[in-house]
Amino acid sequence: MIKKPLLLACAAAFAALPLSAQETKPEQPSPPEIVSRAKAEEWVAIAPSDLLVLELAGIADGKVLKQRRVVIQLIPPPFSQGWVGNIHKLAAAKWWDGTSINRVQDNYVVQWGDATEKKALPEGLAVVPESGYKTALERIFPVDAGPVAGNKDGLPKSAIAEMDRAAMAPKMRDPYSETLFHFAGWPLAGDFESYWPTHCYGMVGVGRNLSPDTGSGAELYTVIGHAPRHLDRNIALVGRVIEGIEHLSSLPRGTGALGFYENEAERTPIVSVRIGDQVTGLPAYEYLSTESQTFAAYADARANRRDAFFNVPAGGADICNIPVPVRRRTQ
Amino acid sequence: MIKKPLLLACAAAFAALPLSAQETKPEQPSPPEIVSRAKAEEWVAIAPSDLLVLELAGIADGKVLKQRRVVIQLIPPPFSQGWVGNIHKLAAAKWWDGTSINRVQDNYVVQWGDATEKKALPEGLAVVPESGYKTALERIFPVDAGPVAGNKDGLPKSAIAEMDRAAMAPKMRDPYSETLFHFAGWPLAGDFESYWPTHCYGMVGVGRNLSPDTGSGAELYTVIGHAPRHLDRNIALVGRVIEGIEHLSSLPRGTGALGFYENEAERTPIVSVRIGDQVTGLPAYEYLSTESQTFAAYADARANRRDAFFNVPAGGADICNIPVPVRRRTQ
Repeated sequence: MIKKPLLLACAAAFAALPLSAQETKPEQPSPPEIVSRAKAEEWVAIAPSDLLVLELAGIADGKVLKQRRVVIQLIPPPFSQGWVGNIHKLAAAKWWDGTSINRVQDNYVVQWGDATEKKALPEGLAVVPESGYKTALERIFPVDAGPVAGNKDGLPKSAIAEMDRAAMAPKMRDPYSETLFHFAGWPLAGDFESYWPTHCYGMVGVGRNLSPDTGSGAELYTVIGHAPRHLDRNIALVGRVIEGIEHLSSLPRGTGALGFYENEAERTPIVSVRIGDQVTGLPAYEYLSTESQTFAAYADARANRRDAFFNVPAGGADICNIPVPVRRRTQ
Repeated sequence: MIKKPLLLACAAAFAALPLSAQETKPEQPSPPEIVSRAKAEEWVAIAPSDLLVLELAGIADGKVLKQRRVVIQLIPPPFSQGWVGNIHKLAAAKWWDGTSINRVQDNYVVQWGDATEKKALPEGLAVVPESGYKTALERIFPVDAGPVAGNKDGLPKSAIAEMDRAAMAPKMRDPYSETLFHFAGWPLAGDFESYWPTHCYGMVGVGRNLSPDTGSGAELYTVIGHAPRHLDRNIALVGRVIEGIEHLSSLPRGTGALGFYENEAERTPIVSVRIGDQVTGLPAYEYLSTESQTFAAYADARANRRDAFFNVPAGGADICNIPVPVRRRTQ
């Protein structure tokens, strides 16, 4: 019999096989299997008003015009709200309609906005200072429990030390920060005084000019390669792609400097950008609570793969290798 | 004046501006600028016999048939040589000619080989045990200096402690290993007893079935997303893409399980795969010696960006964010 020499292809198929007497390694569920067993109440609904929906020009697929939609979840308070507010205004003004994808740099970013750099911005956009790149501890973890970042309950301050302690264990040690962990659905790094979201695959940020400019939010990019964590605290992160990133990551790379396209024909037109509550028929989305037991088990399994394909568990994982599960809500 | 709100687009243009009296931050060269100033003798030639050249089917670009070539540098001794030997035999037998790209999974891998899984392999391929995923310390660092991994000189064993010490500093701390550093042109992780190459963007590995199968080398993949370091020591790494990865990373994502294409029409045909010394007119390539002063300065700059765009240097970098510079040799 010819073996099926496919990377990871067989893990799922083999998962149901009975163990032989010689088999000493008990079969363990894979990270997706763990997530699939989460309780309904461990999933958190994402409000349509927290979604940004990009419709790219359709692409010919035989005789069919295939739609290309990218769905972005905007980051909740206390992070980056000056820019998030601007994004709401830009979408309401239909500012991005008729703009384009202008830059695709391999192993780095896809960037979109106004290629002419001459389109006037709507009135009333906020100018956010660089202090907005990070947020003080007290704004993330209120001393007295209260509503935080979409979660029902805040964390008592006593929990902070515990989270920081856990994050400093070898399994999470990080060259870019003193501490990191997931909270309220997002990957965060910190220095015990302030905290900031991290540049993982699919995160969406705000293009800008040189300091002290911090960008308006009209020029946006998403990460399509290895996490460029050196951008943390240097550029604002405003969200993450939760569906359709393949429509951006598989675009032809730009041949100009920094991956910019060199002519108009290369740019993918953006038909429209709307906040989710303005999009008829948009599916409902939900994420796995990062404070849930299932998320803890999932993160542990990502750091210590015990499913059939793996022989040597890593013993750790970097935060960008523990993506927060997001799915369409079915009910 | 409308600002040019482009992520990183202006850094190079501003680099030549004179500093104003108020400007206290002296302008520092960017990592690419540092590399561009390396001395000729800091570059190490890559032998054509260490290259694997994939020619994909050309793609229509207007009226022109655009060539798509991917150049892979095979990993030198003491790593993965059983599989590398098999790859030489498979290329000599022209085994890959007429096979295809069969899998493109977003933020993970592109995989190629025989989609039918029925093509007979050449005689005499090695069956490599799982112990080949890592290599003993003595095989990387001979106690007495001697030829190692393409470098002119080995390292005395006393240098190991120094390298491990440096690697354990905060700037390189790693959730996946006890120590990591570049050596002889490659990113390595280790546990002080054994060492292994790391799954960074563009690294090439050997698809396999469940343990104890380790794969033959006929099914290969390359990383096109965030470094899946949990695969380290679980799959063999045999090289890295040094040119043309955009021809793989920008392919349409497969819609089947694990990103496999679901029908023949979706697969990109592979015209030929040859060792570099069999390819007429192949450019010469070279990499920046990871033991050079310029590499040390480049790695430091990657960990502490001081060029104009950056305000907050990270203070560290993960090893996959310090890619070894490789270029075409001009002389």
